Amino acid sequence: MSQRPPASVGQHIEQVDTPALILELDAFEKNLDILNNSVANRVRVRAHAKTHKCPEIAKRQIAAGAVGVCCQKVSEAEALVEGGIQDVLVSNEIVGARKIKCLAALSQRARIGVCVDNSENLKQIATTGARLDTYIELEVGMRRCGVAPGAPALALAREIVNSPNLRFAGLHAYHGRAQHVRSIADRKASISEAADAVRSTKALFKQNGIDCPIVTGAGSGTFMFEVESGAWDEIQPGSYIFMDADYARNEWAAPLPRFEHALFVLATVMSRPSPQVAIVDAGLKASSVDSGMPTVWGKQGLTYTHASDEHGWVEGPQPPALGDKLLLVPGHCDPTVNLYDWYVCVRRGTVEHLWPITARGALY
Amino acid sequence: MSQRPPASVGQHIEQVDTPALILELDAFEKNLDILNNSVANRVRVRAHAKTHKCPEIAKRQIAAGAVGVCCQKVSEAEALVEGGIQDVLVSNEIVGARKIKCLAALSQRARIGVCVDNSENLKQIATTGARLDTYIELEVGMRRCGVAPGAPALALAREIVNSPNLRFAGLHAYHGRAQHVRSIADRKASISEAADAVRSTKALFKQNGIDCPIVTGAGSGTFMFEVESGAWDEIQPGSYIFMDADYARNEWAAPLPRFEHALFVLATVMSRPSPQVAIVDAGLKASSVDSGMPTVWGKQGLTYTHASDEHGWVEGPQPPALGDKLLLVPGHCDPTVNLYDWYVCVRRGTVEHLWPITARGALY
Repeated sequence: MSQRPPASVGQHIEQVDTPALILELDAFEKNLDILNNSVANRVRVRAHAKTHKCPEIAKRQIAAGAVGVCCQKVSEAEALVEGGIQDVLVSNEIVGARKIKCLAALSQRARIGVCVDNSENLKQIATTGARLDTYIELEVGMRRCGVAPGAPALALAREIVNSPNLRFAGLHAYHGRAQHVRSIADRKASISEAADAVRSTKALFKQNGIDCPIVTGAGSGTFMFEVESGAWDEIQPGSYIFMDADYARNEWAAPLPRFEHALFVLATVMSRPSPQVAIVDAGLKASSVDSGMPTVWGKQGLTYTHASDEHGWVEGPQPPALGDKLLLVPGHCDPTVNLYDWYVCVRRGTVEHLWPITARGALY
Repeated sequence: MSQRPPASVGQHIEQVDTPALILELDAFEKNLDILNNSVANRVRVRAHAKTHKCPEIAKRQIAAGAVGVCCQKVSEAEALVEGGIQDVLVSNEIVGARKIKCLAALSQRARIGVCVDNSENLKQIATTGARLDTYIELEVGMRRCGVAPGAPALALAREIVNSPNLRFAGLHAYHGRAQHVRSIADRKASISEAADAVRSTKALFKQNGIDCPIVTGAGSGTFMFEVESGAWDEIQPGSYIFMDADYARNEWAAPLPRFEHALFVLATVMSRPSPQVAIVDAGLKASSVDSGMPTVWGKQGLTYTHASDEHGWVEGPQPPALGDKLLLVPGHCDPTVNLYDWYVCVRRGTVEHLWPITARGALY
């Protein structure tokens, strides 16, 4: 079920078969630097690997200063550990006997963290005897998983502290809904409210003699607000390495840096049905459309207007010719990466590496 | 990059890890029969394998009477031929030197067809010397690829007939936009117009001494209109084996049969943040949302309201409990299948087969 790479190292980008997932290495490395310079060691960085699903990228994030990575699924964490990553937080609840067994087995091979928001689930995890860093997921505006700040969080913290094998690692406080709010003022206000919930919960823990070692959370759209609040010890940005078209639609201003587009889908014009329309060979199986269509990179006046499964419509006054290749910026990087087996890593037009996306399809 | 199967043969469906792609074998086999009974040998069936990407399913479609399959990509066709399928039409234009070379190589191993809509592309294919069944893609309402009916199609047909190695196989006339038009009367009207375009083009070919062996096209939402028009020799339904939530929103009435839901995503409740909300572990990386959210199967009053990458919100007055499993009907079957490595084939609650989705991710 793995596909062959669409290119060979040393080829020119024009020779790469399409659709292909292109990682522009100069922009990727610049994005690693931009993050480090912005954060300037004020918090720990634990990069989110759900975005890239690739040990080669995780290694470079760690080399650039990250303490480890987050994953969203146990099988994703397995692929990262298999690829040599030694510190992985599964920033999600893990429910179900088979998954919990895999999580426990993985904790024999690497430092593994997990989130909980339910006492029954916590007991099932505790009975494995696994040494796990256990975080309480705090509801801070995402309205998804998580327990309410205050007393419900305290009750769960007591249970973790009293579980002999588990280590209470702290709070997971991620406001996912804030990341794509367009106005920077609105994003700041959302994180300010989340910070209040974090502070009051930490204070309650302290009053009750419970130490909260780490507060972790934050994404690429807000992380400097978490840093500046002083309420977080660790941030989890994922998309910053790639920048997708949807993130580009956000307002960006200090203190948040604007990252560069580093991830592209290379497509070929496969039909020219009319003077203003080019059909490309990258549709919604090549670039996820859940957060809007991809944009056309570096070509004024061209719009990718809609997609079918294997086709995209690129329209404008001067569309490219049959056989021409185009770079598209995906609407949403995470689910787009999940459609591919390989990053074709390009520097100044030449393929420098082929990195396997080993956690592609890691759903369990 | 391939994931391990989420189940073993003989397990009960409750033991299957999630998210998993479930194929209900009784419903799948019934759908094969429904199609055959409807068509009753009035046309050939060439099932579209872009829907399922799986040689095991293709073999069963052929055993049920199909003459072969369609694919949308050369690499998809390679996976099907590798799995033992001997007659594959790539129902798409193939543009680019590497793809054309692979197509030519594949024609040494099986009977392969391809579509063209451009003279320059046709010449590139012809120079490979490959023996290919070559179809002209006719624009009949899809407004995607394809040449206009009449004189443009005739010019291209002449070129194919004059290419020594290529065999002119006929017309590919697929009205994709008609498939999901809700009203059955509107779908019928669209196919009636497409049939006029097919007939006039065939008549022009005949006046010019060009035989048109096959007219192929049609999808699950319209195929009986193509059959009844008498203008098509072969139909290409794909989704009929699965029936997704978007197809279920169509109006269905004679002469079109209504197929049964046979494809599901099995999900687990991973959090219960509030009395009316259950969060499941299947988000948009587990069930494609391009044609709407999945629906909840067999549970009155529950709605899957929205998705993030790895989470889904199931809401209603009595949501399932933490750890409960749910079956979801995907919004759109084709891109959902493309997210998985395995079909977990279930009959009356027991896992009977695990079929690999060998063309998963076959983008080239």
